[in-house]
Amino acid sequence: MKQEKAENLGIPSFSSPARHGQVATPERWLMRQLLRSLGDPPIRVRFWDGTEMEPVPGAARTTVVIHDRFALWRLLSHPMLHFGDDYSLGRIEVEGGLVEFLDTVFRHTPRARSSSPTRRQLLERLQRARRNTLSGSRENIHHHYDIGNSFYRLWLDHEMQYTCAYFPDPAMTLEAAQLAKLDHVCRKLQLKPGESVVEAGCGWGGLARHMARYYGVRVRAYNISTEQVAYARERAAQEGLADRIEYVLDDYRTISGEYDAFVSVGMLEHVGTEHYHVLGGVIDRALKAGGRGLIHSIGRNQAQPMSAWAERRIFPGAYPPTLREMMMIFEPYDFSVLDVENLRLHYARTLGHWLERYETHVPLVEQMFDAAFVRAWRLYLASSIASFTSGSLQLFQVLFARPQQNALPWSRAHLYHDHLRKE
Amino acid sequence: MKQEKAENLGIPSFSSPARHGQVATPERWLMRQLLRSLGDPPIRVRFWDGTEMEPVPGAARTTVVIHDRFALWRLLSHPMLHFGDDYSLGRIEVEGGLVEFLDTVFRHTPRARSSSPTRRQLLERLQRARRNTLSGSRENIHHHYDIGNSFYRLWLDHEMQYTCAYFPDPAMTLEAAQLAKLDHVCRKLQLKPGESVVEAGCGWGGLARHMARYYGVRVRAYNISTEQVAYARERAAQEGLADRIEYVLDDYRTISGEYDAFVSVGMLEHVGTEHYHVLGGVIDRALKAGGRGLIHSIGRNQAQPMSAWAERRIFPGAYPPTLREMMMIFEPYDFSVLDVENLRLHYARTLGHWLERYETHVPLVEQMFDAAFVRAWRLYLASSIASFTSGSLQLFQVLFARPQQNALPWSRAHLYHDHLRKE
Repeated sequence: MKQEKAENLGIPSFSSPARHGQVATPERWLMRQLLRSLGDPPIRVRFWDGTEMEPVPGAARTTVVIHDRFALWRLLSHPMLHFGDDYSLGRIEVEGGLVEFLDTVFRHTPRARSSSPTRRQLLERLQRARRNTLSGSRENIHHHYDIGNSFYRLWLDHEMQYTCAYFPDPAMTLEAAQLAKLDHVCRKLQLKPGESVVEAGCGWGGLARHMARYYGVRVRAYNISTEQVAYARERAAQEGLADRIEYVLDDYRTISGEYDAFVSVGMLEHVGTEHYHVLGGVIDRALKAGGRGLIHSIGRNQAQPMSAWAERRIFPGAYPPTLREMMMIFEPYDFSVLDVENLRLHYARTLGHWLERYETHVPLVEQMFDAAFVRAWRLYLASSIASFTSGSLQLFQVLFARPQQNALPWSRAHLYHDHLRKE
Repeated sequence: MKQEKAENLGIPSFSSPARHGQVATPERWLMRQLLRSLGDPPIRVRFWDGTEMEPVPGAARTTVVIHDRFALWRLLSHPMLHFGDDYSLGRIEVEGGLVEFLDTVFRHTPRARSSSPTRRQLLERLQRARRNTLSGSRENIHHHYDIGNSFYRLWLDHEMQYTCAYFPDPAMTLEAAQLAKLDHVCRKLQLKPGESVVEAGCGWGGLARHMARYYGVRVRAYNISTEQVAYARERAAQEGLADRIEYVLDDYRTISGEYDAFVSVGMLEHVGTEHYHVLGGVIDRALKAGGRGLIHSIGRNQAQPMSAWAERRIFPGAYPPTLREMMMIFEPYDFSVLDVENLRLHYARTLGHWLERYETHVPLVEQMFDAAFVRAWRLYLASSIASFTSGSLQLFQVLFARPQQNALPWSRAHLYHDHLRKE
């Protein structure tokens, strides 16, 4: 087994102890306990000595292979973190399909049946580890989004949408589904020509371009990722939209001015619940009397932290909230929630497209980074798919308005006119 | 001024002190403070001596008339409760439109900008006053729903829907809009022939009949109102649906069996937040693996008690929750919220139809009860309209499912096919 570099991910390097030999009885017993705590998923475990273990004999369609004793011990000590690191390093491998393996495990893992105060406090402490203060956020965002536009360009769509697409027809291409998502958001907001929109966390600027181009609005879009803002500005200039879009390289907390609409797609995951009250205040100051807003975010049915591995290696400071937690944004400012749509399976499909494209570019990614990076991102994309298919992650689009905004559509049929026409 | 009976509402009778004379300066000053605390709404106050007061001179389109000193003092001591009681007794009247007057007041009343722990504790104490225990619920529900089917029949639609209708076209009749609501609920639940449904709080049984008749499902429907269940059973028998619907005269907490769908329209307002965890447990036990559910309830943007008057005279034990509070039903059991729709303005329109029909039957209602009852119910319907138009009340339909239910439609377009065809 070749030892991989992992400097691009911050995975500590290990001197390979590689004291192989037979798996010991206590090691086997501990692995059995780990599988039990995971709800005895129908998977197979194969150890470095070729011996195997199956919690549900004959039911396994996927196998996790543990290549050395050190990887086993690390897995037993902190399964969520070390599975990721050792998978990245190639000391753990999966046979029979990584997504299927993870989906099986996630489906069987017992979920909490209550949210006790202790559990909440623990969660709060975990979250506090990487506070999304003004400088903390910049560091956290830099870690993920400034890997390089050329990397993301390999597997994202033409509009560089790094958020859940919308597949009213599941057979749509990723390109079409991302455009459908942008349109779905604009329709929900009922944007009218000449209106002004403020966007918090604009990524590579695709939504702002879509709104300015097709809905005739002026957009001010905030983002703290240097690479993304540079890209967004360049494209807006190239596409003749620079007079209608202002990309601001700054934190959402510095938003100024008054707007007809507020929109944020895929930023809330990086905000942290302790700042939701502040975010609500920002929206409250930014929205005119007839204003409305939309927040699109990964979420949860029950409060729980990000996977330790993903939080540490991929998305520092990230936390997908429950709907209950999201209400901390709206409730203090008397916003009226008009519409919540859960697009969980759309994200699984989006990620499926990304993973497929990603795999076709693996040689290039390995050249840009290293083999450990290649495997870490494969694991991240695959485990995200499995999280959405197994119902452990949700995707919420929440539409809201000022409480006395009565110029509301009488139904949501206007969101579906075009799609129906195509059928 | 004629002194009205009020025995049907439990309003205490007062010996009329009727010490008229001039309004004193301190009385005027106190009324001025009351108007200020209400946000200085552009209304006019006329006292029994003919003098007037306007917080915004020249802006008033409606006038509240206070007919005697005792009514004024009572109003100053507990405005929300005594406005209702003295309006019912005819000691306070409104000129220029009751709905408009109330809407103006509600729009200007300052809303809380935070939900402090103290505020929450106060709310909890208020709610505890009329606990919805098994016997408490029966008393509370009896108070409101057992007034008599013949009373409700005067102004409800043919299906006796005493909940928000759905007006995809605002010009629809009440009859059509109530059928559209029943259908909207069934479509959201994606009911299929042969499936089983349990309904918590079935009113006069209209939704159960609609589901059985048009969607071919078997329904077990729970309700603790004797009068309503008797009516529901009779109609199901008359309409040949008795083999597919079982109406159970019992509390939702006694629901047994397993079902494909759970539905509850207009019951949650009577449950009380302290029982949401129990309700979630009932749903969790009742739903099969592929099960889904829908809860339709009046709600709020921010936690606050019912108006003291409505809670005391009209709806004992009622409390419209925030979305955040509603999540206490779903979160402990890992239910996945799929869709939330806010139909606030639909309820205002529904109530508008009810009030219009109610007014045409006033002589009959006065014969059945008394003049104070007539005015109390007029106030209740009018203030409900104003609560929905001013954004102080919401109407939430929440669709949810088991977390691993992946047989979900790819969009909500199926809810809008017919309506579009008609356009």
